[in-house]
Amino acid sequence: MKKYTNIFLGTAFSSSSPKDVQILKDNLFFINTEGMIEKVVAPEDADYQPLLDAYSGDENFHRLAEGQYFLPGFIDLHVHAPQWAQAGTALDIPLYDWLNTYTFPIESKFADVAFAKNVYHDIVSALLANGTTTALYFATVHKEASLVLAEICAEKGQRGLVGKVVMDNPEQTPDYYRDADAQTAIADTEEFILAVKELATRTKQGVYPVVTPRFIPSCTDEALKGLGELAAKYDTYVQSHCSESDWEHGYVQERFRKNDAFALHDFGLLRAKSVMAHCNFLDDQDADLFAETGTAVCHCPISNAYFANSVIPIARLLAKGVEIGLGSDISGGFSPSLFDNVRQAVMSSRMLEDGVNTALPAAERGVPNSRITINEAFYLATAGGGESVSLPIGRLAENYAWDVQIIDTTFATAKLPLYDANEDLHDIFQKIMYLARPENICEVWVQGEKVHTR
Amino acid sequence: MKKYTNIFLGTAFSSSSPKDVQILKDNLFFINTEGMIEKVVAPEDADYQPLLDAYSGDENFHRLAEGQYFLPGFIDLHVHAPQWAQAGTALDIPLYDWLNTYTFPIESKFADVAFAKNVYHDIVSALLANGTTTALYFATVHKEASLVLAEICAEKGQRGLVGKVVMDNPEQTPDYYRDADAQTAIADTEEFILAVKELATRTKQGVYPVVTPRFIPSCTDEALKGLGELAAKYDTYVQSHCSESDWEHGYVQERFRKNDAFALHDFGLLRAKSVMAHCNFLDDQDADLFAETGTAVCHCPISNAYFANSVIPIARLLAKGVEIGLGSDISGGFSPSLFDNVRQAVMSSRMLEDGVNTALPAAERGVPNSRITINEAFYLATAGGGESVSLPIGRLAENYAWDVQIIDTTFATAKLPLYDANEDLHDIFQKIMYLARPENICEVWVQGEKVHTR
Ligand SMILES: [Zn+2]
Ligand SMILES: [Zn+2]
Repeated sequence: MKKYTNIFLGTAFSSSSPKDVQILKDNLFFINTEGMIEKVVAPEDADYQPLLDAYSGDENFHRLAEGQYFLPGFIDLHVHAPQWAQAGTALDIPLYDWLNTYTFPIESKFADVAFAKNVYHDIVSALLANGTTTALYFATVHKEASLVLAEICAEKGQRGLVGKVVMDNPEQTPDYYRDADAQTAIADTEEFILAVKELATRTKQGVYPVVTPRFIPSCTDEALKGLGELAAKYDTYVQSHCSESDWEHGYVQERFRKNDAFALHDFGLLRAKSVMAHCNFLDDQDADLFAETGTAVCHCPISNAYFANSVIPIARLLAKGVEIGLGSDISGGFSPSLFDNVRQAVMSSRMLEDGVNTALPAAERGVPNSRITINEAFYLATAGGGESVSLPIGRLAENYAWDVQIIDTTFATAKLPLYDANEDLHDIFQKIMYLARPENICEVWVQGEKVHTR
Repeated sequence: MKKYTNIFLGTAFSSSSPKDVQILKDNLFFINTEGMIEKVVAPEDADYQPLLDAYSGDENFHRLAEGQYFLPGFIDLHVHAPQWAQAGTALDIPLYDWLNTYTFPIESKFADVAFAKNVYHDIVSALLANGTTTALYFATVHKEASLVLAEICAEKGQRGLVGKVVMDNPEQTPDYYRDADAQTAIADTEEFILAVKELATRTKQGVYPVVTPRFIPSCTDEALKGLGELAAKYDTYVQSHCSESDWEHGYVQERFRKNDAFALHDFGLLRAKSVMAHCNFLDDQDADLFAETGTAVCHCPISNAYFANSVIPIARLLAKGVEIGLGSDISGGFSPSLFDNVRQAVMSSRMLEDGVNTALPAAERGVPNSRITINEAFYLATAGGGESVSLPIGRLAENYAWDVQIIDTTFATAKLPLYDANEDLHDIFQKIMYLARPENICEVWVQGEKVHTR
């Protein structure tokens, strides 16, 4: 009898397509030493009962209790880890002022590695407690502190994709917080890439370096060019902000006479492993370029309500075949929970479809066919995120990592409203997606290891 | 030395105006036997130190721990208590279908008092755990079960304003779920009013009957007229839905050749104690009529994203002097938390101001000056709600009820990101408003009685 590291029995929800959620009722999940799902067996399969009989006595056999369900761990494609220190504040001002008055001062404090450690421990723990098993992080310009963030992810068992931020343009960054110059920024980034790759050799769930120009305005052409070359040299991930707001969109138009997408592409920064945050103002050609290059959009619905001057047309981008995932954008977005962002993604899409201004007749108010369903928003937070970073994560299926959140709908202080013993599992799924709190997340596993429990 | 029921020492946040939050740092709050705040004393007051010395040894003296803060309890002006059973489901369809396919069938089950008890216990407990100390409830058409809801509020210590729903229009309600006819609906409502008034005589925090025509489409003229007369006869609260969606707004226009506001007014249903949910499509004259009659608007920002086809222009209505509070609208809104609704109120207002459609130039996209701040949204959930129901609640000030939620920012599994021992209290307030979870609500008090604790 083959030995597995862990075997789980329970009902799981997992995307089978952007629109459809598959219900794996009372399935068996066999996890191997690499933390991968080696086999999934359903009750209707012939070997189900023999396997259940064979393994259910094992000490590494886990049977979900009544009212518990598996969801894939969430994949947060956009987190500014240092900004956790200011989450929830100063959201009443425009992006440009928010950066200069609040955000750059706080990020500059991460020169202090002890302070960085403190905040980074908290944010990684907070994200795990919220069911986020993989996160794509912006750290700060500081090479040492950025590496600390990668180390903390490694240690706490979260799959971390971490970038040392590059911002060297003296016209758009403050004296007290920028890279010394383009060459230093590139050299620091290369050292950072090598250090994280070394760390990765001892990290089961994976940590990955990410080439991270903050956004076009804060970088010189030389830095952007050098970063594109580094991304190619080491085949790394790339992340940045793209076509986020009217101001930013306009700035890039003025500097390059083209949209962000084509400007980034000129510097070699749109690649299969690129993830661009926001992207509200992509036009059709930009979107086609994203689809061609395999560049993913990270939708940050909560943050967008504050800083993006619009709702991104997700349904249109999905139809164009662009890869899309979800991001909290801590702290442009206040919430560390992708549940909150899933909910907002649905609500924002409804507001785009119906429009907002009651002074207009219904037919002129919104943009038809813009709504996305809760299933689609769930897809963005899970399978869509996995595809965006080209990793076998975000689905509960064979050959995917065992990255899981176990939802307890019966937890005394956060009981979900379930009154019918035979309640439809699609309804239960919706209640979980709309009503679950961190309290309902009783266990979180990454790559077959338990990393959070209540 | 005067005896008080309880004395509290700590820092509180309370609205001093719709735009301003007052910080009561290290204040003393003296609570009398009626559960009212009899005296508030600040450190700069001359009698502070003598009072502190005199009372701090008392067993009924409560000093907040480091990292704990008082907020007024929230006032939820719109909850369909029976719909808790379906919260979070079926939000992908229009209002009309949602009512007929999901909502009416579930509400009809409340003919069964045992089922009603079960759900009503849960929703009242859930709201208290979310910091809601006062709630304005729609029950169902059933007189008995509606009274059960009032009894459960009384028993659990929540201030409940409860309405037996009236819906007698055979053209707009299903056979299996409506009042037998207008006379029966009115007679049942009168019996219900008397029973709740009787219950109120033994309920410290107050329970109140509410005249509750579901909304114009579901009521005959005769029922609306009779309910207006009952409201006048007993000087009761009135609640309904008003100008919610394109469909509903159009229906009323077709039936009465006027907007909801004027139609309701014709039936005597706009009064100082009236609260109308949604109201997205009020025009300027409707709003003036609301202001003149003292009728309050209940803003339901989460629900509106699904069913109201628009964002209500709150800033404009506030400027017109209309009373406005906040509502969860369970289960048109999925969340039992007014924290979630406060956050959505701010976000929706930003989307109204900036607009949603990136295909339009910025200047044509939104409605200028529509944004509300987190302070204003907090006001809606507290003091604005209190004014809407004309009760001394929603503020932490003398002659207001001691309706309080104690927020613990340091709770291990839901620690807020506070790193600076001297962090500005306005920033702490914002972090609480944006990041607090039910876990952070360690105690809830209503009318001087502790009704929830963790
Ligand atoms: Zn960002
Ligand atoms: Zn309602």
